[in-house]
Amino acid sequence: MNHTIAAYAAPSPKAPLEPTTVPRRELGEHDVLVDISFAGICHSDIHQVNAEWGEGMFPMVPGHEIAGVVTAVGSQVTRHTPGDRVGVGCFVDSCRDCGNCRAGLEQYCTGELGTVMTYNGVDRDGNPTYGGYARQVVVDESYALRIPDGLPLDEAAPLLCAGITVYSPLTRWGAGPGRRVAVVGLGGLGHMAVKIARAKGAEVTVLSQSLRKRDDGLRLGAEHYHATSDPATFEQLAGSFDLIVNTVSADLDLDAYLGLLRTDGALVQVGLPERPVPVSASALIGGRRTLAGSLIGGIAETQEMLDFCAEHGIGAEVEVIPAERINEAYQRVLASDVRYRFVIDTATI
Amino acid sequence: MNHTIAAYAAPSPKAPLEPTTVPRRELGEHDVLVDISFAGICHSDIHQVNAEWGEGMFPMVPGHEIAGVVTAVGSQVTRHTPGDRVGVGCFVDSCRDCGNCRAGLEQYCTGELGTVMTYNGVDRDGNPTYGGYARQVVVDESYALRIPDGLPLDEAAPLLCAGITVYSPLTRWGAGPGRRVAVVGLGGLGHMAVKIARAKGAEVTVLSQSLRKRDDGLRLGAEHYHATSDPATFEQLAGSFDLIVNTVSADLDLDAYLGLLRTDGALVQVGLPERPVPVSASALIGGRRTLAGSLIGGIAETQEMLDFCAEHGIGAEVEVIPAERINEAYQRVLASDVRYRFVIDTATI
Repeated sequence: MNHTIAAYAAPSPKAPLEPTTVPRRELGEHDVLVDISFAGICHSDIHQVNAEWGEGMFPMVPGHEIAGVVTAVGSQVTRHTPGDRVGVGCFVDSCRDCGNCRAGLEQYCTGELGTVMTYNGVDRDGNPTYGGYARQVVVDESYALRIPDGLPLDEAAPLLCAGITVYSPLTRWGAGPGRRVAVVGLGGLGHMAVKIARAKGAEVTVLSQSLRKRDDGLRLGAEHYHATSDPATFEQLAGSFDLIVNTVSADLDLDAYLGLLRTDGALVQVGLPERPVPVSASALIGGRRTLAGSLIGGIAETQEMLDFCAEHGIGAEVEVIPAERINEAYQRVLASDVRYRFVIDTATI
Repeated sequence: MNHTIAAYAAPSPKAPLEPTTVPRRELGEHDVLVDISFAGICHSDIHQVNAEWGEGMFPMVPGHEIAGVVTAVGSQVTRHTPGDRVGVGCFVDSCRDCGNCRAGLEQYCTGELGTVMTYNGVDRDGNPTYGGYARQVVVDESYALRIPDGLPLDEAAPLLCAGITVYSPLTRWGAGPGRRVAVVGLGGLGHMAVKIARAKGAEVTVLSQSLRKRDDGLRLGAEHYHATSDPATFEQLAGSFDLIVNTVSADLDLDAYLGLLRTDGALVQVGLPERPVPVSASALIGGRRTLAGSLIGGIAETQEMLDFCAEHGIGAEVEVIPAERINEAYQRVLASDVRYRFVIDTATI
């Protein structure tokens, strides 16, 4: 712990973020040192800074949408070399031995270590983890992803959380040619879902509270756009979709959305409403429908997603900001005033 | 409408059933005439007689677990001949043209006709349908199933609803060798789920309110039996099951049951609670779990189920009663005092 790195941290729960330094570990033999270029701002950063998902560990350096360049590697590293463009997502380690880790589902590690989150977590040495609102990060080579050449680093950063969060359920539940996919909410997750579902060949519909972002939605790849504030939407689209990806954390009338599914259709939750939501068995049984949840993705699938995005020329729509505007950006995220992801230029930290 | 058949009917909502006669249609060229031998009593019969699922049409002859013998066939019938042992389940017709009918999901017919229920429905000629608490039924040959020789007719009757209701989700969600399946509730549906899941090679656990029926559960094929009234059950079995089939209509704490699933596990509802049940997104997202529903099965799958049951020597556990005891049997069903299905000997009608 002889090294420190410049970072932006919340010193205590709900406090504004401010410049500081945090320790980083010595480069282990399997570690890579990454100079961070960009770090996305995810709504979950705000939840954790505000201690809304448990007490949290402070000072907290958020950030799990990290894109940068390798500058040094440990003696046993084989996956990366200095100069490589890499990404780090929501977790930086896991037990590597449980059934889920072996199956590439490291985000669901059931080992004693558990999934080590990129920040607000505890690593295998017992030290707190610090995230991507910083100049550098040290990470085990197996948890750093290759960012293909075609992807600009600023547009790639949000793929590490927003991208994989929607890519995984779109893949698992079969978004593709001949399939009708609805995306609920056109925010950071939703706009990636539209792009990826379209690239997979599905017919994409956006279901948004209003028609305010309709032009954006169509430009991003949706063929249809409907306002959920209009009750006629639910009549008109009843029984329409093979898959609905719900990116909204607000409480929705899930029965109404289940009614939009065709027989055997699936509604997948990736947003996390605070309260339990009532679901009628008849909404599931009538139509043999499925309500499911999905949490980011494993390492191999995240790499697959980055390669897919590069192949299809897909990045996030970003607004790059200097670090001094992080707190302002948080306010704008809370006001849904972002199209579609803030990304911190970490050279300004 | 020159013919009448002896039947037991509820003359009005909530009224006791009593002997009567109802009209049956002339044998059409694609119809078979079935002498009913046995008719199972399903809990849904009681719901419908009591007008708990809509107003209902009266007089109502319930019964959609029908086993009998073909005594006459129409001129164009090719599937059955007189003397054949056949079953009739929950529906007797559907449009045969919509995507679902073509896919063998006649129970989810989306055509104009819709799925014609075996009783309390309206057939394609606009006439009310009458169910299996009767001496005979006329049904299109395509909606009559072959009952394999090895299956006694009394034990086969409940397969037409209770059997297929659990066989379909057990099949779709992969009950088989190496998979841990829990069955919630050991009643008419649950006891069939235990038998079928065991025959498919799964490791079966019964989750029942108490240990009262434990010996039965183990005899029927379960390897484990736990009381859900004991909170320790939910701690001990957390993350255990690949599949849970919930046969209970009572309101359950679904989040607690979702917590019993392994990563990628599914909880399938086949019982129909009256009220919506609260579900936490975190219970689904944590573990990539699925909550699904399933409604009986199509004609081809119902035949597959009958063949599977015959091959594995599986019938329902039945208590055969004369028709005059139908009303008493209803009371006992409501009191959960049945092991595990009442079957009416229709010769007594």
